[in-house]
Amino acid sequence: MAEFPTATKAIVTTPPKDGQLSWDLQDVHVREPKEDELLVRLVASGICHTDLVMSMIPPEYGGLYPKVLGHEGGGIVEKVGAKVGHVKAGDLVLLSFDYCGKEECHNCADEAPGYCPEFNQKNIFCEAEHFKKASGESAAGAFFGQSSFAHRTIVKEKSAVNVTDLVKSEEELKLFAPFGCGFQTGAGSITELANAKERDSVVVFGLGGVGMLAVMAAKLRGCRTIIAVDRVQSRLDISSSVGATHTINTKDFANLTGDVVDAIKAIETLGSNFILDTTGVLALIEAGIQALAARGQMILIGVPPPGETLAIDPVTLLGPGKMIRGCIEGDAKPEKYIPQMIQWYREGKLPIEKLIKEYKAGDFAQALGDMHNGSTIKPILIW
Amino acid sequence: MAEFPTATKAIVTTPPKDGQLSWDLQDVHVREPKEDELLVRLVASGICHTDLVMSMIPPEYGGLYPKVLGHEGGGIVEKVGAKVGHVKAGDLVLLSFDYCGKEECHNCADEAPGYCPEFNQKNIFCEAEHFKKASGESAAGAFFGQSSFAHRTIVKEKSAVNVTDLVKSEEELKLFAPFGCGFQTGAGSITELANAKERDSVVVFGLGGVGMLAVMAAKLRGCRTIIAVDRVQSRLDISSSVGATHTINTKDFANLTGDVVDAIKAIETLGSNFILDTTGVLALIEAGIQALAARGQMILIGVPPPGETLAIDPVTLLGPGKMIRGCIEGDAKPEKYIPQMIQWYREGKLPIEKLIKEYKAGDFAQALGDMHNGSTIKPILIW
Repeated sequence: MAEFPTATKAIVTTPPKDGQLSWDLQDVHVREPKEDELLVRLVASGICHTDLVMSMIPPEYGGLYPKVLGHEGGGIVEKVGAKVGHVKAGDLVLLSFDYCGKEECHNCADEAPGYCPEFNQKNIFCEAEHFKKASGESAAGAFFGQSSFAHRTIVKEKSAVNVTDLVKSEEELKLFAPFGCGFQTGAGSITELANAKERDSVVVFGLGGVGMLAVMAAKLRGCRTIIAVDRVQSRLDISSSVGATHTINTKDFANLTGDVVDAIKAIETLGSNFILDTTGVLALIEAGIQALAARGQMILIGVPPPGETLAIDPVTLLGPGKMIRGCIEGDAKPEKYIPQMIQWYREGKLPIEKLIKEYKAGDFAQALGDMHNGSTIKPILIW
Repeated sequence: MAEFPTATKAIVTTPPKDGQLSWDLQDVHVREPKEDELLVRLVASGICHTDLVMSMIPPEYGGLYPKVLGHEGGGIVEKVGAKVGHVKAGDLVLLSFDYCGKEECHNCADEAPGYCPEFNQKNIFCEAEHFKKASGESAAGAFFGQSSFAHRTIVKEKSAVNVTDLVKSEEELKLFAPFGCGFQTGAGSITELANAKERDSVVVFGLGGVGMLAVMAAKLRGCRTIIAVDRVQSRLDISSSVGATHTINTKDFANLTGDVVDAIKAIETLGSNFILDTTGVLALIEAGIQALAARGQMILIGVPPPGETLAIDPVTLLGPGKMIRGCIEGDAKPEKYIPQMIQWYREGKLPIEKLIKEYKAGDFAQALGDMHNGSTIKPILIW
């Protein structure tokens, strides 16, 4: 295997079987980095809901199988390609997402690379021939420019943020691994996209890692009210401990949309200024639109089931100047925002340790189970 | 009529008959101004589509009849109430809209008074007992705090912008009368709400007064492409003369939504950054959402027929970070923005004279007919 010289282990994803995702930790070899790539030894990899969604895509809908997923990596650079300038072997990196970065790209030039027109190509679809299985079959990589569900992997230059001077130890990479996607998405939606201020009221639907970081970010911005909405009481309890001023448990709501609107309006008579949906549940998004204040923003983060549509009377947006908008990666530029989040953590403003539970990489099934039943908010696989 | 001392004339609106609006120019008396009001002698009043819409509201849906409409007035102050500080008798004023202006109002404090929670109450609904007809019946006023379809009317303090030092003659008030609503809405949507820049592509659906000012504003901002869309060729021709770089005539489109998307994408492959709808036609709004670039904004200005709904797949907004938002009064604060528009006019950047046709107030039926058949874009009634 001359072209795949490095022996390592990876969680290889094959097509879903019987409605279940199919992951397997196995011995693989990884290829050499090209001129704009790095070889990284992972210390830790967060599991994000998007990994689960992408594991369930039927092969006939596109997407390469087998493949290595994972897009919240933290690790140490072992080798860099000839054109890579911002990191060197031995540096500590947090991994995020890839983008074109060209001057002529409207969105990359605006420091909003999450909306780069090449985003899906570079992050969601994978590249063939990154890994070679023991059987000789190749496996795809470059998921979010990283495919970090591997002990060693090839990382695209732009997906790697150099945190050598910001991180005190390899140990801290375990805690910080989710900064590159879920945590950045949640915090950035409040500080970068919404730019929420003290006088604003914020509502967060869904208290996974994204929602919890949104709550923390709203608290660090000093928002007037921070209303956390979920159907799992233990998550609501954690949200209160990290910044929520009010919680709404939807578990027993008979009319989800109407009851949520009533509960928010009982707290904010004129409605809330920023309402984030991390759930993709249409009944909640509809509630959010109704519960916005004038000039309020309904921010869509969670992905609804394919083909479901919202019925919106434009007049309900028009008079009050309401807004519905999509948000990718918290509108953040990782190389700027990840250092910012680390600083906030040092100042005690992002108590992410309350959300994290570590698992050996081989115990991913346990991690998935705990994520599913709500007992773990953000599982981290340790290599 | 001691409480209604001032004899004048007004276009009195009674409930619609046989599906037609019912306007009548008649002798009336107007009451004295209260402490936060002015008595204004109108020189000119623009007719805006909203006047027509509000004339067709059945009495059972609320709204006082008879009433005096009109909300684009220019005139001379004759008397002021005790608490009015910013204008005095003899001053020239352009009339706009009313708002609470309280410090604790999120939107008024943000200089976005168009989204004041009291907006509908203060502008759309009217106040009884402003005018007294010869028959002794009273008529409602205070439409947009002005009811400017009258030779003399009562104006709310906040609806009046003092332009004494900016306007050279009474004659100019005829030209500038529509600044307070339609023109402000169109220009402000581009410069205040969208804040469009040179590298942006702008699309405008509908070329009435609002759409034409949006085109002019996009030109003064130097926008890369300005795509004007209408079904009347004469309007498209005018739009080309005031700034449109491309025109799309939808008259013969078999599939309005798809054909408009194709026509826009033929000009801007990646889509446009700001798409304004001034028509309220849902098929166009749907086209606009599809034809947006990543992070593009679909700006809703035109009011769709009541009860019609857009079916939106949230995923189409989510990945590309697209936005749908409502816009009232161009997001502008009239006391700042009307002087700005006058300055742009002096610099040749708002060639509004191309849009305006003057009619004697008594010839309002002719004005309405010309507005309807498209031969006049902005009719001005002269008192």
